[in-house]
Amino acid sequence: MIGTGLIGGSVGMALRARGWHVAGVDAAPGVAARAVALGALDVEGEDRTADLVVVATPVRVTAGVVRAVLDGGGWNPAAVVTDVGSVKGPLVAAVDDPRFVGGHPMAGSEQVGVDGASAELFVGATWVLTPTATTDPSAYALLRSVLADVGADVVALEAAEHDTLVAVVSHVPHLAAATLMALADDLAEEHRALLQLAAGGFRDMTRVAAGQPSIWPDICEDNAEAIVATLDLLVTALGDMRRRVAGRDHASLLAVLDRAATARRALGERAPRPDELVEVRVPVEDRPGALAVPVVLATELGVNLVDLEIAHSAEGDRGVLVLVLAAAAAPAFAAALAERGYRSSTSAVGPSR
Amino acid sequence: MIGTGLIGGSVGMALRARGWHVAGVDAAPGVAARAVALGALDVEGEDRTADLVVVATPVRVTAGVVRAVLDGGGWNPAAVVTDVGSVKGPLVAAVDDPRFVGGHPMAGSEQVGVDGASAELFVGATWVLTPTATTDPSAYALLRSVLADVGADVVALEAAEHDTLVAVVSHVPHLAAATLMALADDLAEEHRALLQLAAGGFRDMTRVAAGQPSIWPDICEDNAEAIVATLDLLVTALGDMRRRVAGRDHASLLAVLDRAATARRALGERAPRPDELVEVRVPVEDRPGALAVPVVLATELGVNLVDLEIAHSAEGDRGVLVLVLAAAAAPAFAAALAERGYRSSTSAVGPSR
Repeated sequence: MIGTGLIGGSVGMALRARGWHVAGVDAAPGVAARAVALGALDVEGEDRTADLVVVATPVRVTAGVVRAVLDGGGWNPAAVVTDVGSVKGPLVAAVDDPRFVGGHPMAGSEQVGVDGASAELFVGATWVLTPTATTDPSAYALLRSVLADVGADVVALEAAEHDTLVAVVSHVPHLAAATLMALADDLAEEHRALLQLAAGGFRDMTRVAAGQPSIWPDICEDNAEAIVATLDLLVTALGDMRRRVAGRDHASLLAVLDRAATARRALGERAPRPDELVEVRVPVEDRPGALAVPVVLATELGVNLVDLEIAHSAEGDRGVLVLVLAAAAAPAFAAALAERGYRSSTSAVGPSR
Repeated sequence: MIGTGLIGGSVGMALRARGWHVAGVDAAPGVAARAVALGALDVEGEDRTADLVVVATPVRVTAGVVRAVLDGGGWNPAAVVTDVGSVKGPLVAAVDDPRFVGGHPMAGSEQVGVDGASAELFVGATWVLTPTATTDPSAYALLRSVLADVGADVVALEAAEHDTLVAVVSHVPHLAAATLMALADDLAEEHRALLQLAAGGFRDMTRVAAGQPSIWPDICEDNAEAIVATLDLLVTALGDMRRRVAGRDHASLLAVLDRAATARRALGERAPRPDELVEVRVPVEDRPGALAVPVVLATELGVNLVDLEIAHSAEGDRGVLVLVLAAAAAPAFAAALAERGYRSSTSAVGPSR
């Protein structure tokens, strides 16, 4: 592992959990030692005999690091080398080597650094690889099987295609979230109640803006062309939206919102079909053990809890346990809860869960 | 209850859970009967002797319904009347009556209709009331105490101020989410892999776009002025962002992203301070009962689980139980898990949880 931050640290943890021996370094003082302490590395240091070298540095230095590993210097000449950067075109063009396969795990979090790392970060996540005509098929096959083993869904794309797509689903959404958050923050100076009104939708939309800002200038530079083109599309589309609102054009507004709702609901359907699931909400006290009765009851009844969440009240002394389970199991579960003195309410699960 | 959809149905459930007798009607055939079946109403029908009348209709008919209740016709002349619409200025101007207090619960969901209703929807949610110089203080006081009793944080604002603020934190974010989703859907026709790359950030940002589109044309019409002004601010700010990216202006880009990150992290700090909490991730099989051992163990150790979540793998046969608890309790909990054969990893909780 060259670079042991959030992503590098998580790769280290995931590989160690699957039996790999992982050595690693980080340019920032103390970070690799912290990675060892957290279980992300077996040992600090460059192991030049490694079979697989994962470069998880900031993107501006990645090409140089990858080239240095590929160009000898005592590194295993059979090693497969990959990276985890958010932009692939410039890197893949700069490194044209059979043993290098560009990569980009589409997992992250608003957490920062190795202290946010997790062995399970990539479970169920899409991990893009960008093989080229030069790529050695056995290097690709090795990397693909390692990533599948840590739980990722591997998708192969051309580097340029990757960059176009992430501008749309990651880079511009991030910039838009930050823009909305900064705009609200501006207005909050004048309107003190503003952020009190920021409910779930606003919080969802701006969540990514809490992530580490320092990685973005380089990402924006490397993928400037696609990002600018996508920002132009977004600004044009928002201008169309403005015209619909200003012109009271109900039909056109409804058409675009309908279309977006249909597309977003389709996006949500990775999980089990939502119409087969229900949400059972159980008010509980906010104290140790409050969860145990409902959860153990589910076990006793053979009910599989597909999802669980605790909604806290602002007062802090009570909350609601939200349990998602098969609709068919809900009536018996609610009845058993009621027998034990737990009031519950059952409702459909929304399309985007 | 006049109107028993998602919000009206949830108000009904919440009031019934606090001992109120709730009668209600809905203009759509069968909806009030469904509300009775789901426990949102005691009885279908208009109870004109009601002490409190909640109008939860689509916004375009709200003013007429409110006026009809206030203007006699056999309704209790002492009844307090409120509504739940997303725009307050035009309604409050149209209804100038001591017994009417405009309201807007800042809770919702991407769910649709009475089948998505929940008695706990308003726990911890901000509920705006817009009293005027005309409002009878005792009407306001009654409504305020009822809403506090269902768990809402009541905030009083002038109607015009409310409309300006919700344009920023709700209406324009909703339109922006729909715009992003529609844009991605456009491009997905040409680039089939696009939506596979849509990770958590994109899903978070576009989640609200899955909500019921039909309510939005009227909201946009009633709040057109503030929405257009806010869309203009957003388009200008996105244009600034484009210039930073196109001009490789790292310093300015970093400054705005830093500012947004700071503001978003501050927004997240309603819950207990995040640096006092950690996330313990426990891989579990995806089957009934897999949760019970870790959760019961927490109870035995007196560990309060602040939050719980199940992350599913794409394969569907395993998952990760994510438990959030006090950092101080984590080492003993992890050790106890290990004794029972559960491998776990502990990491810091992100700022925006």
